[in-house]
Amino acid sequence: MILADISALARKLNDCRNAVILTHAHPDGDTLGAGFGLCCYLRSRGIKANVLNSEPLPEKFSFLYKDYEPQDFEPSCVISVDVAAKDLLGDGLSDYADRIDLCIDHHFSNRMSAKDCYIDGDSCAVCLIIFELLKELGADITPQIANCLYTGIATDTGCFMFENTSPAAHRAAAALVEAGAQAAAINREMFQVKSRGRIFAEQRAIGEMKFACGGKVALITVTNALIEGCNIDRADLDGFAGIPLSVEGVEIGITLKQQPEGVFKASVRTVSADASAIAQRFGGGGHIRAAGCTLTDDREESERMITEAAAEFV
Amino acid sequence: MILADISALARKLNDCRNAVILTHAHPDGDTLGAGFGLCCYLRSRGIKANVLNSEPLPEKFSFLYKDYEPQDFEPSCVISVDVAAKDLLGDGLSDYADRIDLCIDHHFSNRMSAKDCYIDGDSCAVCLIIFELLKELGADITPQIANCLYTGIATDTGCFMFENTSPAAHRAAAALVEAGAQAAAINREMFQVKSRGRIFAEQRAIGEMKFACGGKVALITVTNALIEGCNIDRADLDGFAGIPLSVEGVEIGITLKQQPEGVFKASVRTVSADASAIAQRFGGGGHIRAAGCTLTDDREESERMITEAAAEFV
Repeated sequence: MILADISALARKLNDCRNAVILTHAHPDGDTLGAGFGLCCYLRSRGIKANVLNSEPLPEKFSFLYKDYEPQDFEPSCVISVDVAAKDLLGDGLSDYADRIDLCIDHHFSNRMSAKDCYIDGDSCAVCLIIFELLKELGADITPQIANCLYTGIATDTGCFMFENTSPAAHRAAAALVEAGAQAAAINREMFQVKSRGRIFAEQRAIGEMKFACGGKVALITVTNALIEGCNIDRADLDGFAGIPLSVEGVEIGITLKQQPEGVFKASVRTVSADASAIAQRFGGGGHIRAAGCTLTDDREESERMITEAAAEFV
Repeated sequence: MILADISALARKLNDCRNAVILTHAHPDGDTLGAGFGLCCYLRSRGIKANVLNSEPLPEKFSFLYKDYEPQDFEPSCVISVDVAAKDLLGDGLSDYADRIDLCIDHHFSNRMSAKDCYIDGDSCAVCLIIFELLKELGADITPQIANCLYTGIATDTGCFMFENTSPAAHRAAAALVEAGAQAAAINREMFQVKSRGRIFAEQRAIGEMKFACGGKVALITVTNALIEGCNIDRADLDGFAGIPLSVEGVEIGITLKQQPEGVFKASVRTVSADASAIAQRFGGGGHIRAAGCTLTDDREESERMITEAAAEFV
């Protein structure tokens, strides 16, 4: 069932006797912020809740789950946050893929099958949906919940820089800062400080940046060799997708990241072109200015395929 | 006279029959946003107004003054915005330095002498003060005024990243976006886009970054050869000084920039050490977290000297 509004979502959440909250693989600030923010709220109401991810959680986000301990219970309600499709849950959570009760997401392209779905494609972050949900529920937003939800809104909007930053996102940020979110410290951690490996991975990827269409398309590639050479974690590649678009004159920025198994995944970012339409050429999808798809395990071929597709949209 | 609140400021502004608005030399987004935002509002009320700066305005901010034409009138009211001291007006505006009627600023350290002063040191931007002033006046905020005020708030908060970002700043941004500010385009221009030369100059400087004291000191050097090789303007080196400090674990970041005549100048940035004391070793100075000094015209020697000095402050 499609839940029509935030109060319908609130009623569904109120029906949960306990909750397992699923976050997507290669977790980012939004899925973890939404997961732990919602979990904090449920626990504060005496409702047992856990947050699950397919992998060990990245150290970078440890402030979101400090003091978190898994609880022991038989799950009666399975909730997914920021998960647009089953396969994005990752292998570790595949057992849950067909038993999701409540899917909360902000991807227009969401294709999960869940008992109930609340999809707000106009929302810049699932954390903004959770913020509105907690407001609807009259919840007390603790500083820890505020940190979680602020993190998701800030990371999914590039610190309020991107086109998806709505007035509602700014107003939520205002309320979350008032509720105790340590915005400046979170921003420094999320946007300013980079690991030494990350700095040098960027440095090398930029050194090999390729341009097409008279400089309107730019592409960087992150191979497994680069990741190993710089001794970085994959979570440390967050934000790489924005690099090609930061070059003056570039209208479509493409970042290829090789996956552990060898295949190249593309992140497409655009100034005005339909990124989602480019990604759909290869069975992918996403948002109008930010989308992704999977290519082949050959670097040159992948670069050529995606560049040719992008060229049609310049 | 010190104006106690925004309504006192509004009354003073209502008394102006026309206005010359002074902005500070080496203008930034806040002084120009406040100047042109206020000018637009006054003109919309049929009040003649001009914005003055000591120098030709930077192309980067041209969207703030498109369609602007100076008007001809005998000034009866001189207003300064974001100008903390007379000498910051620059030579071109020094004739006005002793006849300022209304000084609107957000620097605690403001030492202007003006007939009336409204100084809100807690405000992250003068544009936020102007926003509150226009609200107080019941003004219609046009898209062009919204662009101006949004620009100042965004640039002075590092796109809502810095500690000075208040809930009021977020709420003003929300209202300005609703009033038609083209936030994403402005952000892209102010924070994301870098010239290709700049990107590659950064890339090369980072590739040669040096570390000392177990990674607590980091140093990059920009030689004249690098500047020429990347075909960039010296103005395009703005912000380079922040690069070494963006590396995880670095407490003292040093950037050497070779001057046209060959000597190396150092910018010292710190997380907690006294940057000014380090720079003073070589006859320089500055603030506690950001200072500068001049070294020698030998790269190796300059790097060694400043690194050894920094090591004593780790």
